[in-house]
Amino acid sequence: MDPKSQSQSLTPPKIHAAYNLIKPYIHRTPLLTNQTLNAIASTPQTPEARKGTSDENQAPAAPTIRFFFKCENQQRIGAFKARGAFHALLRLIEDRGEEEVQRRGVVTHSSGNHAQALALAAHTLQIPAYIVMPRISTASKIAGTMAYATKVVFSGSTSTEREAVVAQVQAETDAILVPPYDDFNVICGQGTTALELEEQYLDLVAQNPQLNVHGQRGSGLDAVITPIGGGGLNAGVATFFSNKRTKVFGAEPSFEGADDCRRGLEQGERVTSVKSLTIGDGLRTPVGRLNWEVISDKNKVEGVFAVTEEQIKAAMRLVLERVKVVVEPSAVVGLAVCLFNEDFRRMVEREGGEEGWDIGIVFSGGNTTVEAIAKLFG
Amino acid sequence: MDPKSQSQSLTPPKIHAAYNLIKPYIHRTPLLTNQTLNAIASTPQTPEARKGTSDENQAPAAPTIRFFFKCENQQRIGAFKARGAFHALLRLIEDRGEEEVQRRGVVTHSSGNHAQALALAAHTLQIPAYIVMPRISTASKIAGTMAYATKVVFSGSTSTEREAVVAQVQAETDAILVPPYDDFNVICGQGTTALELEEQYLDLVAQNPQLNVHGQRGSGLDAVITPIGGGGLNAGVATFFSNKRTKVFGAEPSFEGADDCRRGLEQGERVTSVKSLTIGDGLRTPVGRLNWEVISDKNKVEGVFAVTEEQIKAAMRLVLERVKVVVEPSAVVGLAVCLFNEDFRRMVEREGGEEGWDIGIVFSGGNTTVEAIAKLFG
Repeated sequence: MDPKSQSQSLTPPKIHAAYNLIKPYIHRTPLLTNQTLNAIASTPQTPEARKGTSDENQAPAAPTIRFFFKCENQQRIGAFKARGAFHALLRLIEDRGEEEVQRRGVVTHSSGNHAQALALAAHTLQIPAYIVMPRISTASKIAGTMAYATKVVFSGSTSTEREAVVAQVQAETDAILVPPYDDFNVICGQGTTALELEEQYLDLVAQNPQLNVHGQRGSGLDAVITPIGGGGLNAGVATFFSNKRTKVFGAEPSFEGADDCRRGLEQGERVTSVKSLTIGDGLRTPVGRLNWEVISDKNKVEGVFAVTEEQIKAAMRLVLERVKVVVEPSAVVGLAVCLFNEDFRRMVEREGGEEGWDIGIVFSGGNTTVEAIAKLFG
Repeated sequence: MDPKSQSQSLTPPKIHAAYNLIKPYIHRTPLLTNQTLNAIASTPQTPEARKGTSDENQAPAAPTIRFFFKCENQQRIGAFKARGAFHALLRLIEDRGEEEVQRRGVVTHSSGNHAQALALAAHTLQIPAYIVMPRISTASKIAGTMAYATKVVFSGSTSTEREAVVAQVQAETDAILVPPYDDFNVICGQGTTALELEEQYLDLVAQNPQLNVHGQRGSGLDAVITPIGGGGLNAGVATFFSNKRTKVFGAEPSFEGADDCRRGLEQGERVTSVKSLTIGDGLRTPVGRLNWEVISDKNKVEGVFAVTEEQIKAAMRLVLERVKVVVEPSAVVGLAVCLFNEDFRRMVEREGGEEGWDIGIVFSGGNTTVEAIAKLFG
């Protein structure tokens, strides 16, 4: 099926169905609030912080923002990817039968989190897993994958190089490909993040009347923002929220063109190749074809914003020091957009008015090491 | 009242009463589990890890341990101290009336977390707060305190030096002293950590039958271990669990004699002065007199164990990288005991048998900086 028609089958009931299937295998990760970060986000940026940007001479935006952090960094294997991997394998077993899947095994390529996720899911469901990883992947991610995978095969870093090694593994083993992000069932799995996020937000507001800023008017979050690498998380989240009042946004690093999705939207055409070494190492891939169909649909995703490496680091520092959870750089691009991107902040000021916005932030992963943190901030 | 008689009034109902009072002001912090850390704790240590210790020639202990991490690092101001501070001030208002307390204000001395906690509680209840802090306190803790305190006054690091400055502030302002740990109401506040921990553990086990290892036999945790600095947290937790099946333990750094409580128990007398620069900067004080009465009561606290600086660092790394939460070094001494102290591990092997123990670990605080993490691990 072509991506356009396939994207039309991505509907909220598909996310609910995925959730019922994967629920026993995944963690219901915490939803956290933080008054200090709300205060920082709701304070106009200083002239120094905005120096050298295109809008340094404009008055800074003055939005009111309340954050709700969905901690997928505390998901199994430390990232939301566990959702998509379990869902893809459980559907594969439904479709082809356990015997065939367990005999042939599965193969994928990933810089790390999907690799670990698929290895864990395959191990749990007793399926052989062959994982192709770029040689330059983070040591902890390689180690995490090796713990569960049947075999890890190394490759170059670009999509082309990875896919060539995958084809080779398939030729040798007859393993079934489970793509890291551009796949219907993977997307539905990742979308379950949004389902939990909304449930937990509504529970929290019901239990804490002081959080119910919008009163009768509101139900559900005003907005949700997620990182976009291959786009599976964002497409899944956008699928869940289609037809709801919650607006969905994407966030990318701008470094060396890693903001391929944002640039693609600007030029009206998907950017198909990216070669960036942004510190957001989970976001170095171009957005997938099926994900592009969802994300470029204005009814599903309102916009995609980019942030610099320094802004990612500043957001990461705030999360570690104030929220007290460990996140990898990729995980905080959405928060960085809310804190530092003046286009985004001006939009929240304009649309949210005095009441402001309740914004769900997906911390997508937490797979880093103390050495990597030391290198970033030492 | 002398400490001995006062300690006899420290009973479980006092903790329940404290909880009802402070509940609106504090966070119900998450309780986390982690299979990787359970697996590490339930694997005998390697000969290398035990080299140079007194038991390097014995066979390593082989306990079975399941952890339940109470994340007080995600408490308000990033530490359990918020509980004691709110409770002390709310009781002060009950006893002396709001007018008197708001007129005179409160004063305390603390290396950081109690300082921030009292400043926040006083600010919330509109009471002036004068905080005496050692000059060498962590920069982030000083900044956190200054955000809420009426005035911060610096002092030397020893208890004697701090108390002299407190006396001076009292002479000038008539402020009421709220001691950092050796105080009946502070202890009752800290003890509410145990109340929540038990409630959350019982909920979790009820919802996840696979966690109910002990079946009908068990109800409640087998053990809880907390850090001991001044001893307020440990004494409060031990108060809550007195008359229950849950055993309470304490943990301290051994560096430069910071294990004053353990040494005191060994020699049958409280050690009254400590001068240690352990990385567990919240644990550099001697245990208080009232806390000593509780902790040295064998019916309340089963034992206190010590760990080295390297063991604290190794535990901190595991928490950051595996549990994905940010903890300060002081927060992980209890976990370090479970992972590395062979005396403790042998006891768990002996008493827990094949079924092993469910152990509650209180992560006492998370107030550190990315620079401090970089310095420890860079």
